Amino acid sequence: MTPVQTVTDTAACCTPLTTEALSLEDAQQFARLLKAVAEPTRLRLVSLIASQENKEACVCDLTEPVGLGQPTVSHHLKILVDAGILHREKRGVWAYYSIIPGALERAAAVLAPR
Amino acid sequence: MTPVQTVTDTAACCTPLTTEALSLEDAQQFARLLKAVAEPTRLRLVSLIASQENKEACVCDLTEPVGLGQPTVSHHLKILVDAGILHREKRGVWAYYSIIPGALERAAAVLAPR
Repeated sequence: MTPVQTVTDTAACCTPLTTEALSLEDAQQFARLLKAVAEPTRLRLVSLIASQENKEACVCDLTEPVGLGQPTVSHHLKILVDAGILHREKRGVWAYYSIIPGALERAAAVLAPR
Repeated sequence: MTPVQTVTDTAACCTPLTTEALSLEDAQQFARLLKAVAEPTRLRLVSLIASQENKEACVCDLTEPVGLGQPTVSHHLKILVDAGILHREKRGVWAYYSIIPGALERAAAVLAPR
C-alpha cells in the first residue's frame, strides 16, 4: 500500500496549462509525470493493462505482447509506479499492476481543461 | 503556413490509451508528441503563450519570463512547432507563436477519453 500515497501526490500536479502561466516548480513536476508516459513501450504497457478484462496485469501477461524480456518490462513498470500512474500489488509470486484511478485523467486535465 | 499540415497530422494520433491496446506505431507517434511537451521550459512556454491576452507571443515576450536566451527559447519553440502543438507565423521581424486549436485537447483525449 505504501507507494500509493506519494504516487497520488505526484500525479495530482498543477492547474491546467492554459489557465495561467505555470510556475517553474509545477512545470518540473508535470514534466516528470509526462516523461514517464512519453515512451512507446510504457504507453503500450499502460494501454495493455487498461484493456485487460479485470484492468490489471502481471509482468507475465505483458512480456509477450510488447516483445521484451521481463527485466526490461519490470523496469518500465517501475517508472510508471514511481510516477503515480500504476499501482503495484504483490500477490503470491507475481506483482500485479493496475492503473491508479484518476491518474491519467488528472494528467489530461492539466494538458487541456475539460 | 507549411508546417501546419504535417503538424496537425502528428497531433491527430491515436485512439484513447485505455480503450484498446495501442499498436507500436501509434505508441511511437504519441510518445513523440508527449516528449515534445514533457520538458519544464516547453510546458512553461505553452502556458505563457496560452495566457497572453491575444493567445499569441513572439520570442521577445518569452525570454524574460523563462529566464533563458533567445536561441534556447527559439530551439524549444521549434520542437513544439515540429510536434504540432504550436503554429508559427512570421510578421515583420518577429515570428509569432500560437497554440494550434485542438492540439492539446487531442493529446489529452488520448491519455484519458472524455
